[in-house]
Amino acid sequence: MTVVSKGLEGITVAQTRIGDVRGDIGQLIYCGYDINELAGKVCFEEVVYLLWEGRLPKRDELEQLRRELIAARPLPKALVDMLKLLPKNAPPMHVLRTAVSMLGALDTEADLNTPEVNRRKALQLVAQFPSIVAKFHRIRQGLPIVQPSAELNSTAANFLYMLNGEAPSEEAVAAIDMAFVLHAEHAFNASTFAARVTIATLSDMYSAITSAIGTLKGPLHGGANEGVIKMLLEIGDESRVDAYVRAKLANKERIMGIGHRVYKTLDPRAPHLKRLAEQLSAKVEPKWLRMSDHIASIMKQEKNLNANVDFYSATVYYSLGIPTDLFTPIFAISRMAGWTAHVLEQLADNRLIRPLSEYTGVDNLKVVPIDQR
Amino acid sequence: MTVVSKGLEGITVAQTRIGDVRGDIGQLIYCGYDINELAGKVCFEEVVYLLWEGRLPKRDELEQLRRELIAARPLPKALVDMLKLLPKNAPPMHVLRTAVSMLGALDTEADLNTPEVNRRKALQLVAQFPSIVAKFHRIRQGLPIVQPSAELNSTAANFLYMLNGEAPSEEAVAAIDMAFVLHAEHAFNASTFAARVTIATLSDMYSAITSAIGTLKGPLHGGANEGVIKMLLEIGDESRVDAYVRAKLANKERIMGIGHRVYKTLDPRAPHLKRLAEQLSAKVEPKWLRMSDHIASIMKQEKNLNANVDFYSATVYYSLGIPTDLFTPIFAISRMAGWTAHVLEQLADNRLIRPLSEYTGVDNLKVVPIDQR
Repeated sequence: MTVVSKGLEGITVAQTRIGDVRGDIGQLIYCGYDINELAGKVCFEEVVYLLWEGRLPKRDELEQLRRELIAARPLPKALVDMLKLLPKNAPPMHVLRTAVSMLGALDTEADLNTPEVNRRKALQLVAQFPSIVAKFHRIRQGLPIVQPSAELNSTAANFLYMLNGEAPSEEAVAAIDMAFVLHAEHAFNASTFAARVTIATLSDMYSAITSAIGTLKGPLHGGANEGVIKMLLEIGDESRVDAYVRAKLANKERIMGIGHRVYKTLDPRAPHLKRLAEQLSAKVEPKWLRMSDHIASIMKQEKNLNANVDFYSATVYYSLGIPTDLFTPIFAISRMAGWTAHVLEQLADNRLIRPLSEYTGVDNLKVVPIDQR
Repeated sequence: MTVVSKGLEGITVAQTRIGDVRGDIGQLIYCGYDINELAGKVCFEEVVYLLWEGRLPKRDELEQLRRELIAARPLPKALVDMLKLLPKNAPPMHVLRTAVSMLGALDTEADLNTPEVNRRKALQLVAQFPSIVAKFHRIRQGLPIVQPSAELNSTAANFLYMLNGEAPSEEAVAAIDMAFVLHAEHAFNASTFAARVTIATLSDMYSAITSAIGTLKGPLHGGANEGVIKMLLEIGDESRVDAYVRAKLANKERIMGIGHRVYKTLDPRAPHLKRLAEQLSAKVEPKWLRMSDHIASIMKQEKNLNANVDFYSATVYYSLGIPTDLFTPIFAISRMAGWTAHVLEQLADNRLIRPLSEYTGVDNLKVVPIDQR
């Protein structure tokens, strides 16, 4: 019995038709489309349809999906009441994990695993998750809750509207929609893998997505985008970048947002986010981008590591005035599309995911009665 | 790129010093002790200490742990308020997953991953989980909540007391304590693996345990014990066992509680539970045990499959008058010990668990503008 590879690194555990991460050539595929082909040409709702159905929607199919999403956005009253019970300083990812789990406790078909019911649950999760993020943010600020708009058929536009209580700019909507497109799917990343491990016991959609949210939260996964902005704020000024990065390298510490388990060359999402960051930060505060570029160039030179998806998305969100602790929740709004697609795919041809482990402890101990220990 | 084995079956993914499942010889090890050596000689709290510390406690260490567990049993008010928001018919495992997740949203150190803080969280989870199960059951029945007893230092005794509102019999306490000992740990089962996938992003204890609960819930894992009693109730009488089982076999359907992914011979927990089931059911209604034995013998003869841990635990719990939908929650009360031990072990030498997948979809598609699709 030998461990195949610590952390399953480099080990292929299953087949999927949803996404492909080609780490050697820096390519990301969603259902046959290169992410560079999709970015700027399709909106987030088209990607949702693509990941669920395996093809892009026709116009009437997209309009139908948008109508369904709009209708599904409002939240159950008990869920909003639960959000109000939480401390205002509760970390949002803990709140969101709890809220999605509670949706399961409120769904009378929570344990029904038919394709129709699971498609309905997937749609509700994609529609309701942005409402949960925005409502909790309004509640913790003591601001009135903003109900979802039936006029805004873009998930990005409606999210910004519910968050800020005013109509968002076209530029902000385009940036968030692009971020949603780029983050929607990434094959067997840790959170998607967790969702598949959970659903593979034939548990249920809510359990699987709850596992995914809790897994995305970690700083070695989706939590990294929040880590990037914290790092930039900690450094504070471009003049301190060099000393900061070299001290981290000397201590063998990680620089957030740099390097990737699978991409050994470019993370193909990073250039799109860098372009957005350039465009948005120029109007607000260009120093974060200059600092980011400086960090990236040192890391390229010293370790031959590249900026990943989290590196420039931090500056994009920060430039849009989004609170730091909502960066990872925004990642989750988008990845909900991929997670739900993977749950549906796993259920269509399921096998329990149950590996073995190698025991390295002691053996053959006998229980000594407690008074003689 | 070839898939190593569907569902990671037979694949050794990591090392652990906590537990070992020796499927070929039907042996289960907790930190060096054969389960047959532990069963009947140690109580659940000793197992909790063993799994966390790698050795059985001395008397003063056990008493210290019991005092800590007693002190940690009460629940935060907001959590009880959340339980009251839920529908009375909400499935308990959805409720428990939500409640444990909410403990994270209420913990001001939720994202602190030091060994001391995580040991405190592990202790609270083991102490509070039975309180959550019992309180929700009281609330859904419209009965007054029973606060944990500071007099009852046994987790089993206190759980039965909080559930039923009266002092439990010695026999019931001994049976539940034995069930807790037998279910506490099982190496890289699906729920423990899910917990380790989640914590390996350096997320947090609550996220990991929430993933574990959602994964245990499925009928291919902990949900099976509830499935067994449903099957027995559906069959209804011993005279119908033969026809029922043979019809299932003819349709290639699963018989709940029979066979195991790893144990190819005996599940060493099953004989202990069978003995308890014999003892308890004799006083209440012996037919469930007779039916169980009959099912087991047909399955042994026809498929050479053995009863697993879930098969006789169903009759044990049923004979004790425990509601069917609390069978899997009882499994979770016990497994909380193993889950938390695995989270602590993973954090002590962490590596992101992020496998690869093989893409079997199409390729090189170009986006056609929506009006031309």
